[in-house]
Amino acid sequence: MNLFSRKSVVPPPSLSPQPSISNAATAGPEAFANNSAYGRGFFEPGAYSVALKRCENGHDLAQQLADMFEERAQLESVYTNQLRAWSRKWHTELVKSQEYGTNKKVWDQTATAGEQMAEVHGALSSSLTDSLIPKLRQWRKDNYEKSLIHYKKTKEFEKEFIDAQKSWSKLLDKISDYKSTYYAACKAAKLADDAERSASEEQRRKLADKAEVARREVGSAKAKYEQAVNEAREQRPRYESAMKEVFERTQAFEKKRLDFFKETFEEFSKILETATEDNPTLKKMNDDYKTNITAHDSNEDLSWWDQNYGTQTNNRWPEYEEYRD
Amino acid sequence: MNLFSRKSVVPPPSLSPQPSISNAATAGPEAFANNSAYGRGFFEPGAYSVALKRCENGHDLAQQLADMFEERAQLESVYTNQLRAWSRKWHTELVKSQEYGTNKKVWDQTATAGEQMAEVHGALSSSLTDSLIPKLRQWRKDNYEKSLIHYKKTKEFEKEFIDAQKSWSKLLDKISDYKSTYYAACKAAKLADDAERSASEEQRRKLADKAEVARREVGSAKAKYEQAVNEAREQRPRYESAMKEVFERTQAFEKKRLDFFKETFEEFSKILETATEDNPTLKKMNDDYKTNITAHDSNEDLSWWDQNYGTQTNNRWPEYEEYRD
Repeated sequence: MNLFSRKSVVPPPSLSPQPSISNAATAGPEAFANNSAYGRGFFEPGAYSVALKRCENGHDLAQQLADMFEERAQLESVYTNQLRAWSRKWHTELVKSQEYGTNKKVWDQTATAGEQMAEVHGALSSSLTDSLIPKLRQWRKDNYEKSLIHYKKTKEFEKEFIDAQKSWSKLLDKISDYKSTYYAACKAAKLADDAERSASEEQRRKLADKAEVARREVGSAKAKYEQAVNEAREQRPRYESAMKEVFERTQAFEKKRLDFFKETFEEFSKILETATEDNPTLKKMNDDYKTNITAHDSNEDLSWWDQNYGTQTNNRWPEYEEYRD
Repeated sequence: MNLFSRKSVVPPPSLSPQPSISNAATAGPEAFANNSAYGRGFFEPGAYSVALKRCENGHDLAQQLADMFEERAQLESVYTNQLRAWSRKWHTELVKSQEYGTNKKVWDQTATAGEQMAEVHGALSSSLTDSLIPKLRQWRKDNYEKSLIHYKKTKEFEKEFIDAQKSWSKLLDKISDYKSTYYAACKAAKLADDAERSASEEQRRKLADKAEVARREVGSAKAKYEQAVNEAREQRPRYESAMKEVFERTQAFEKKRLDFFKETFEEFSKILETATEDNPTLKKMNDDYKTNITAHDSNEDLSWWDQNYGTQTNNRWPEYEEYRD
């Protein structure tokens, strides 16, 4: 008696607008097998809990996203500091070293390029820490902050779903009761019929009366059962629309989250592009380095050395010096 | 008697082709005040040691440059591993999370972008470790490797300088000796003159003879001194050219180093540019991310959720079910 069935365990293409989504999912809402809500129609009693759960998830997911960016900011900051320390160390070493001339200039620029790269990744880290993450945390606070006992929004939606479902749940209970009564009456009537058929002539009249009573009871129980089912058929549109109304509010609330996440991803995309391809400091780093290499001139350096340490230095040649008292 | 003087303690512009070189130097060859060779003309005895020192420095500087790139490769590798770990962690967290749809796709791409960036910095690190540094180390080995007791090249140059300077040094010693002898003779002649002038009549004749002898000795010592100085004047061109010949060999050897360093810096420049502006993986990273954001569609995600968890799920509505035996 499996009246309920999902459209399909593996959703047909029309239900899965992006097949890759389902393919990629081994857990989470996209993996039905792990979904506690799997197998329940949304309008069945209490099945709305899946929508409340999603509302709470939004709070946790915003937290997770902030944590993820926080860790990225942290590791970018570590890299920045390491690059900076490297650059400073080798600037200092170079000053102490025996290097000279244009060759020393390019070497020094090698250390400077490290500082320039540090600047870029420091900016990446700051963009996350100073802009993206605080905005995300504030948004989460504004939209999901707890009331006295619960997440505000989840609690609100829960009350609304309970209200929308209250009379319908009572009606379902009534149908269930009347159906049981009707089925019991059917069973009793059948027993009475069987007893009448297998009884002796003397007993048959008495049992026939009993069976007649049972059949009448079947009739009245059936009428009640049918009436309750009809009542449900009548009430269903109102119930469905009440539930959909609350559901749409949970959808609208979730849409705000998805749209805000998109904005956040867009901001990260800009940060990422700035830190890689589209950055004036990186352009300057590469230009400066190439300019310095162009000015590298070993002949100039050797000539400088010759003038200052080699054959061009002033020399004391032996000359005749007269004796003086 | 300061016959020796540097052309200038602060070198005039013509001696300093790039003023910034000297300005930047607070130590090293460009800072004269710290230079032990400061104040000695190159052709003076033993002054060539500064050229031998430069030869040895080349070996140490190549080592320093390799160390510098080694440290850079190391810190790039640490960053790469941190990015990779970050990317993997958040891929895994996302699979376990309650996220879904195109929003999940973009989030996942955020982790993938970390992996792509790791790839770029891993390549930067490998380029240093696998190409630039081994070449530099091999070059240093080939050019500066020790002989049995010393750096081969330095030892070779030292022998050549000693040879070129040998007879000149002897001549300088001779001049120095003859000059001393001449000055001593002058002093003795003066004493004899003074003694003659202040002596009594009886002693004057005897002292006059002594003074005459002393004057003759002055004459012969002066002639020897003058001759030695003249000899030096004659030998100087030959000496200078012999020293310059060895010096030019040290210059040529140093030129090889400067040119090889330039090549190394050029290779690093390419590595740096590839890792920043001119990298296909970075371009792909930014393109992939933007493509994923373009595909972000909150309405599609909400509709998917509605179909799979919401009002579009198959629902068990109450229906009249006939009793069966």
